[in-house]
Amino acid sequence: RYGYFGKDKPEVVKLLLCNVMGCLSDGTISLFANGDDEMSYHYRDQAAINMLKKEGVEVILMSSRDYPIQAALADKLAERLGCLVKQEVDNEMQEVDNKMQEVEKLMKERELEWKDVAYIGNDGADVECLKLAGLSAVPEDALETARIAAKYTCRNAAGHGAVMEFAEHILLLKKKAKSQMEQDRINRNNV
Amino acid sequence: RYGYFGKDKPEVVKLLLCNVMGCLSDGTISLFANGDDEMSYHYRDQAAINMLKKEGVEVILMSSRDYPIQAALADKLAERLGCLVKQEVDNEMQEVDNKMQEVEKLMKERELEWKDVAYIGNDGADVECLKLAGLSAVPEDALETARIAAKYTCRNAAGHGAVMEFAEHILLLKKKAKSQMEQDRINRNNV
Amino acid sequence: RYGYFGKDKPEVVKLLLCNVMGCLSDGTISLFANGDDEMSYHYRDQAAINMLKKEGVEVILMSSRDYPIQAALADKLAERLGCLVKQEVDNEMQEVDNKMQEVEKLMKERELEWKDVAYIGNDGADVECLKLAGLSAVPEDALETARIAAKYTCRNAAGHGAVMEFAEHILLLKKKAKSQMEQDRINRNNV
Amino acid sequence: RYGYFGKDKPEVVKLLLCNVMGCLSDGTISLFANGDDEMSYHYRDQAAINMLKKEGVEVILMSSRDYPIQAALADKLAERLGCLVKQEVDNEMQEVDNKMQEVEKLMKERELEWKDVAYIGNDGADVECLKLAGLSAVPEDALETARIAAKYTCRNAAGHGAVMEFAEHILLLKKKAKSQMEQDRINRNNV
Repeated sequence: RYGYFGKDKPEVVKLLLCNVMGCLSDGTISLFANGDDEMSYHYRDQAAINMLKKEGVEVILMSSRDYPIQAALADKLAERLGCLVKQEVDNEMQEVDNKMQEVEKLMKERELEWKDVAYIGNDGADVECLKLAGLSAVPEDALETARIAAKYTCRNAAGHGAVMEFAEHILLLKKKAKSQMEQDRINRNNV
Repeated sequence: RYGYFGKDKPEVVKLLLCNVMGCLSDGTISLFANGDDEMSYHYRDQAAINMLKKEGVEVILMSSRDYPIQAALADKLAERLGCLVKQEVDNEMQEVDNKMQEVEKLMKERELEWKDVAYIGNDGADVECLKLAGLSAVPEDALETARIAAKYTCRNAAGHGAVMEFAEHILLLKKKAKSQMEQDRINRNNV
Repeated sequence: RYGYFGKDKPEVVKLLLCNVMGCLSDGTISLFANGDDEMSYHYRDQAAINMLKKEGVEVILMSSRDYPIQAALADKLAERLGCLVKQEVDNEMQEVDNKMQEVEKLMKERELEWKDVAYIGNDGADVECLKLAGLSAVPEDALETARIAAKYTCRNAAGHGAVMEFAEHILLLKKKAKSQMEQDRINRNNV
Repeated sequence: RYGYFGKDKPEVVKLLLCNVMGCLSDGTISLFANGDDEMSYHYRDQAAINMLKKEGVEVILMSSRDYPIQAALADKLAERLGCLVKQEVDNEMQEVDNKMQEVEKLMKERELEWKDVAYIGNDGADVECLKLAGLSAVPEDALETARIAAKYTCRNAAGHGAVMEFAEHILLLKKKAKSQMEQDRINRNNV
């Protein structure tokens, strides 16, 4: 026998999508008179992204068209965290359709389906993606509408380790899925 | 028939007035040795201002004479948030009359009455404006005297989404007012 | 009759002494790679200093030898708040005697006694001054030993309005003292 | 008689090891577009390091390979706090063995055993060191696995005085150990 014949294909996430503003950062925007932008994130969320990459999960950070960060800052963030920072994603509170289309474009480029995707969001625009993704989460301080749509609500707030919490959840399920696949293989061989 | 003949003219806010220090920002002033000013606000409050503008509500941010921000920073804030930043408003804790006069001057330029105005404040100087405005609110961490004068107390603190919370409140009432006006029109036509 | 003949001379504070680190600021020190110092304070505490000055109370900020701020930053703080910033005060946690001597030197220059002084502190080094001052307070997050020595414990933490809270307390007592002096004068004239 | 003949050699800590990220700092990483790094710590933790040095305890700060700080910032931190900042320590969440080896290398250079070492950590990588050190602690907001391994859990969070809390604990035990040694000496002389 070849291929995978288990009843349900277990969830093995291949991509994590994460908002910069309100998921990785705590949502505070700092303005300096001299024109220089700043953003903050928690060291544990950086570790989370490293962990996921080691386990073969790609991470894409989505920076919003509405609260853009300077190109130089986005480049620096991408370099530090070692992942793609997708600028200019439409995150206007109500624009659910636009955001879903942009996410589906990213998925198509990678030949992924929704069940392969983990999604952490926090706003009205994230509602549909939170519903469709195989795994989804919101930080503790997300908007009510996003909380309802998400499958998992973090105990940690945005910018204080919510991404790590979700990453641990993802890797735990990935581990379970792997051991289930292994068990299924053994069961098939014993037939 | 012409004009509007409903019993009470429903509240349709045309202007939101908002303190920079203690409403939009959390009230922290950062000093740098090199002379450069900094201020922080929450991304959700930026979204709130966008939302209100789309619904035809003008937003004016009031920066105080007592805790002035550098002109370059005020310009940048105005550009980012796409609204007027009125510098040098008198916000000395006790100077209620001065602040009211400056606000009434802004209203007169726009031919507005108090019932057309939504006001979010946090200090002693805001008490009269909070009482007179058609809609008014304070962040969760406002001074006690301001809390008592306001019609609505936000669950969120200054700099953590209080402006968004008030904006949602305003737009909900605006929506109700519109549907009531529509209903009144239908009722009149059915007479 | 001349002079004041009331039973107890009422407390009319003429000087407020306040630590920069741990009373005016929240105690966080920010280091920048490029050598530039930063410090933060709450706008309400700036208003408190203005209020006190209008009522004839001098305010001196004490910056510690142990956690010094750059001269340029101290100058800027003094200019913004319009008060003396005394650099190089000895605030080593245990050095109670040194701090008391420095404070008594400031008092002597102004011909003041301890009953004329209001003191807000937060550390072990402040214990004696907190005990001796006519009025004294600690922010909500002060060291236990300082809390015990202070006459008043603020509900607000350092950097979040503790100075304003103490200033309101001082001015209330000052007002009471004035009305008592006035009452005593009337009583004497009625003899 | 020569040497020390008490039953158990009392704990007299000679070295404190402390993570920069998540023990001294609150774990927030600030990125600036212009390339300049920033980090924050609490003034009370600076006082803690001074206190320990006066009592003959060396302090080494460990900066992680995973969340490195710029060399200029590490130099500045070392200068301000007057202690060694060991860059490039391996703190990857899971890499317990690497971290232990690096710590044991530092101990060997100083001819110290684990019972001479006090250790404050916060991550999975700190688990073995927390177990082996004579005294060990975690800030209030440390990872669960680290909390379980530590002998002492601080009431204060990282970046808000956890190091001072542990330092007071260390010096209290050091004092007890000294008075016990003195008592043992008297007892021996009275034999």
